[in-house]
Amino acid sequence: VSAPRRNFASDNVAGVAPAILAALAAANEGAAPSYGDDAWTARLGTLASEVFEREVAIVPVATGTAANALSVAVLAPPHGAVYCCQDAHLVRDECGAPEFYSGAKVIGLPTPDGKLRPEVLAEAVEGSRAFGVHHVLPAAVSVAQATEWGTVYSLAELGALADRARGLGLACHVDGARFANALAHLGCTPAEATWRLGVDALSLGATKNGALAAEAVVLFDPARRQTLEYRRMRAGHLWSKHRFLAAQLIAYLSDGLWLRNAAHANAMAARLSVGLAALPGVRLVRPTEANEVFVHLPDPLHAALVAAGFQYHRWPAADASPVYRLLASFETAAGDVDALLATARAAAAR
Amino acid sequence: VSAPRRNFASDNVAGVAPAILAALAAANEGAAPSYGDDAWTARLGTLASEVFEREVAIVPVATGTAANALSVAVLAPPHGAVYCCQDAHLVRDECGAPEFYSGAKVIGLPTPDGKLRPEVLAEAVEGSRAFGVHHVLPAAVSVAQATEWGTVYSLAELGALADRARGLGLACHVDGARFANALAHLGCTPAEATWRLGVDALSLGATKNGALAAEAVVLFDPARRQTLEYRRMRAGHLWSKHRFLAAQLIAYLSDGLWLRNAAHANAMAARLSVGLAALPGVRLVRPTEANEVFVHLPDPLHAALVAAGFQYHRWPAADASPVYRLLASFETAAGDVDALLATARAAAAR
Amino acid sequence: VSAPRRNFASDNVAGVAPAILAALAAANEGAAPSYGDDAWTARLGTLASEVFEREVAIVPVATGTAANALSVAVLAPPHGAVYCCQDAHLVRDECGAPEFYSGAKVIGLPTPDGKLRPEVLAEAVEGSRAFGVHHVLPAAVSVAQATEWGTVYSLAELGALADRARGLGLACHVDGARFANALAHLGCTPAEATWRLGVDALSLGATKNGALAAEAVVLFDPARRQTLEYRRMRAGHLWSKHRFLAAQLIAYLSDGLWLRNAAHANAMAARLSVGLAALPGVRLVRPTEANEVFVHLPDPLHAALVAAGFQYHRWPAADASPVYRLLASFETAAGDVDALLATARAAAAR
Amino acid sequence: VSAPRRNFASDNVAGVAPAILAALAAANEGAAPSYGDDAWTARLGTLASEVFEREVAIVPVATGTAANALSVAVLAPPHGAVYCCQDAHLVRDECGAPEFYSGAKVIGLPTPDGKLRPEVLAEAVEGSRAFGVHHVLPAAVSVAQATEWGTVYSLAELGALADRARGLGLACHVDGARFANALAHLGCTPAEATWRLGVDALSLGATKNGALAAEAVVLFDPARRQTLEYRRMRAGHLWSKHRFLAAQLIAYLSDGLWLRNAAHANAMAARLSVGLAALPGVRLVRPTEANEVFVHLPDPLHAALVAAGFQYHRWPAADASPVYRLLASFETAAGDVDALLATARAAAAR
Repeated sequence: VSAPRRNFASDNVAGVAPAILAALAAANEGAAPSYGDDAWTARLGTLASEVFEREVAIVPVATGTAANALSVAVLAPPHGAVYCCQDAHLVRDECGAPEFYSGAKVIGLPTPDGKLRPEVLAEAVEGSRAFGVHHVLPAAVSVAQATEWGTVYSLAELGALADRARGLGLACHVDGARFANALAHLGCTPAEATWRLGVDALSLGATKNGALAAEAVVLFDPARRQTLEYRRMRAGHLWSKHRFLAAQLIAYLSDGLWLRNAAHANAMAARLSVGLAALPGVRLVRPTEANEVFVHLPDPLHAALVAAGFQYHRWPAADASPVYRLLASFETAAGDVDALLATARAAAAR
Repeated sequence: VSAPRRNFASDNVAGVAPAILAALAAANEGAAPSYGDDAWTARLGTLASEVFEREVAIVPVATGTAANALSVAVLAPPHGAVYCCQDAHLVRDECGAPEFYSGAKVIGLPTPDGKLRPEVLAEAVEGSRAFGVHHVLPAAVSVAQATEWGTVYSLAELGALADRARGLGLACHVDGARFANALAHLGCTPAEATWRLGVDALSLGATKNGALAAEAVVLFDPARRQTLEYRRMRAGHLWSKHRFLAAQLIAYLSDGLWLRNAAHANAMAARLSVGLAALPGVRLVRPTEANEVFVHLPDPLHAALVAAGFQYHRWPAADASPVYRLLASFETAAGDVDALLATARAAAAR
Repeated sequence: VSAPRRNFASDNVAGVAPAILAALAAANEGAAPSYGDDAWTARLGTLASEVFEREVAIVPVATGTAANALSVAVLAPPHGAVYCCQDAHLVRDECGAPEFYSGAKVIGLPTPDGKLRPEVLAEAVEGSRAFGVHHVLPAAVSVAQATEWGTVYSLAELGALADRARGLGLACHVDGARFANALAHLGCTPAEATWRLGVDALSLGATKNGALAAEAVVLFDPARRQTLEYRRMRAGHLWSKHRFLAAQLIAYLSDGLWLRNAAHANAMAARLSVGLAALPGVRLVRPTEANEVFVHLPDPLHAALVAAGFQYHRWPAADASPVYRLLASFETAAGDVDALLATARAAAAR
Repeated sequence: VSAPRRNFASDNVAGVAPAILAALAAANEGAAPSYGDDAWTARLGTLASEVFEREVAIVPVATGTAANALSVAVLAPPHGAVYCCQDAHLVRDECGAPEFYSGAKVIGLPTPDGKLRPEVLAEAVEGSRAFGVHHVLPAAVSVAQATEWGTVYSLAELGALADRARGLGLACHVDGARFANALAHLGCTPAEATWRLGVDALSLGATKNGALAAEAVVLFDPARRQTLEYRRMRAGHLWSKHRFLAAQLIAYLSDGLWLRNAAHANAMAARLSVGLAALPGVRLVRPTEANEVFVHLPDPLHAALVAAGFQYHRWPAADASPVYRLLASFETAAGDVDALLATARAAAAR
């Protein structure tokens, strides 16, 4: 029995799910055409269309930043504006990649909980339009599902936002770095959570949820495929041994692996959230709906966790008291959570 | 015994070397810090400096196009000119990625054999300078080693070119997608083939030679590291589970794997080259110095090979008769080559 | 006697100062070398160095947006962050030109009055740095002098900001679209208001203050000239008949024309400001320090002015009651102001 | 009587046509809305549609490089290829501006005389397509009319090229820096020389032919106007006092000024060409169809001209003997030409 894992810093500190590692080994048989002309890539295309219940264009890349940046570049012109939450990965954590790929301006808008409100979006768009050609042209909205604050848009919330976006003439992108976690929380189908609501493009994450390095742009209008494929190549994101990207995603989307992994991570986060919230002086900052826990911790409790080797980040926030973020992943075991909670309880009892 | 491999279309139709696949599995133990703050990445940095016999900055990415584009972006300003061979991957096969990343203009120059001549470079630079601000500013030269025509610069040739470049005020980049094949041919050390000649940056390929997806930019002036790391992130090429990039390159550079694989591929190409050249009507287009064979084939011989299921590409060339390119990889077996030669001999005998 | 001008919408609704129009006609004598190799351009270089009391590089362009975008591109790398006020022309009114030219991200920060505070800048920079490579690299600060709110940084204020910027490793740019108005208010020399405070680059405006179409980037480190000149050409901003750009700026900077025009515009704005502020229900939103007046007007008073044909803009602001902006230019006559005030007084008396 | 002008270096060494200077002075009356919301700009739109005999979008800028770069950016995606002659201004003399604005790759193709041949274009496009996503996507062709070699496409030639381009799926741009000179040579209408042949966009030059600084992008599909206007603003090419751009172009296109000026320049070039060609040892390099003369001059003759103060450029060319370019402009007088010819004849007689 190994020692409990004490690293809750991110879901990407996890390794690779065994089924995905096995898929990589299995794909390593014989020669295969390069650059996506292989059987795995073809299979992935079919599978994705099954999963999303319509013909889609799915284009894999190795990183979520690439998936987001390519999505934005397909949806917005260089003189365009792309709106997102002010805490969004898109605007804060990607070193300007969406702007680099698209030329567009990414504009962060305030939200209380990581969920962009239709009226906030509308006001921003109208404000931009008032400047005419002097300001960038409103072009797209991008939302994270699950959000960067660990919350999940309800279908009604996301549908209302997508409707408003469409009414404003904007395309709609979903940053699904943790899309499986959102699906697991919502208990709906991928179709119900995306194009049936009016979503045009999805960054489908797999890396945080068990892949080695695999994400994909999913376009619900396959006519946009050519532009996306050229842009991927131009950005250096087309793998020569493409089967190894496709094989990861096939394994991920097959046999419910993605949803199983995500449901587990969510459950571990919930276990952590409930356990922490029961302690005196601890206060949840946002509801724990996916696999992220945002919490205020009393200083002595935090110090005890750090001293015991637990790892997690302080989160940038305007709050007076420090906010910490703890993540669970598909690899997090109940024992890992319980070890943290035991340390926390002991500290709280002192 | 499996059937002989018949795919000579590229060295990237090969799979992953067993030692590298094993390294990926070995790296999949426990949590690790993400985005390069892990032990594998640190180890790679040390190892690369040992391999190159000086402190270098090594920054891994998944594709050769990304490595080239980032190298160019570090060496040339947006208003700069980067010179290369007119058949170079950089100018013809990367969908404008180097221009996208750098803003610079990539200018292809004529060569008889894939090797850029110092006097051709000098003439082009002087021609550019004559236009002053109306033309882009000469900034860098990029050469492939081994070249796109399967040839290898001698150390004297590359040194003379790098010297001339320096004299012209240009930085010098080597596209080493097949750098190991060049080293195996030259029988020199990595240091002798790069910075000791005046090379500033190297795209170090591994994917074609046994990795799953791993290349690296190697900068011989580590002061350029920060710019490179920011640009990599901005281009979406920083892996979250970075240990899996680093682990591939560690295995690649350890225990002589890279040179062993390359020497094998070169030997298989030589076997193929010699065998084909002995046939009536066959003519080598370029000397086979690395793992690529460029050859004219009589039409009936070509037809027989295709009919037998052998795969390889017709190469774009200004020649009257068609030029074919056949590649050997680390996976190519002598029996694979011999099977092709047997078919070719039978056709030639008809 | 012509009717009073009723257009207070901007200072760029004005025409060309007679001395500048005369300079254009005078430059239209005989052939002259193109693209800046002419005598006027040489003279401008000498004159600018005299005006700024040190050797500077002055590079003219036709628009302020070009001057700002080029300045930013010289001072910040593509992966950089440029900080400015959230209401700055740079971030709101230039359709993303600074980002287009530089690749950098322009980040707007809150201010009460258009003047960026050192501590607000420092907090933003430290916040950016906390994300490392995931966020853009702090590179430069850009402030408008006079500001977009019609205020003027005192020399102490601007010096403190430039000092802090330097301490944070940032370059410092001044958007001087209304630099002459600021100088006229401050009563100091151009040198005292720029490089002596630590300013690295200035967008020197002339168009709003009497030129037909002439601005310039002034670099206080002439070593940056080559980069700027190449970037100007690459952006299509090098005039072939360059003498006609240079001639405008020579006339502008000669015989005190720029300061005289600006002082007049400031005086007219002050006359307007004082006159309006004396009326019941009118409230100045910001002090009138240059040639812009920001004011709340009672609805009936505003309606009366509009009905009388006076033109000015409602300004985007978070205030409950509407904010209006009125500008005076070098062409505004006291009679123009008095006509507006008369209408306003009559409306206020009703 | 002034001395003869001896500067034949370019047509942009000329000044401003009196009618255009007068138009600028006339436009300097009273306030006018800025940024193109003025009466002059509206008038220009109407006038351009009359001149081209259909509704067009005309968007003025100050430089030909800007007009070309904007045209390319409207017609080609960032992953696109734009084909032109290898000596084209677009690829050689604009410091990468078209690439900067569009992201596309500009590819120069060989021609004997500055006129791109349909079959050369077709071969290049098919060559690009053969690489699929690895090469940039064929998107547009750009030709200069008159060409950089002083030749003029016949309507049949240009029509055949535009037809072929359309068949290849390319948009068609004409760099009309010297469009009036071409019209004067062809004796056809603007419509006949552009959209009736299948041209999509025209860079309409005026500066070389009498304007101070005024060019325009003319789009024959007005639906592209919005994109163009946003891109112009984003590139810093929207003048605040826009009436002064529009007024130049109105004067230029009114009363036949543009064609009269161009016919005169053409006639002066013809006079020069005929006169030089009659001298022993002189050889025309290209036929003189517009206002440019390309000629081999014996060394003593060249030396005599230089000694007498005549100015013109040696032209970059692969010829063994030096090629010189001499230009006539709307300002060139017959006496100026005759003075040069007299010097040349005297030298030839020695």
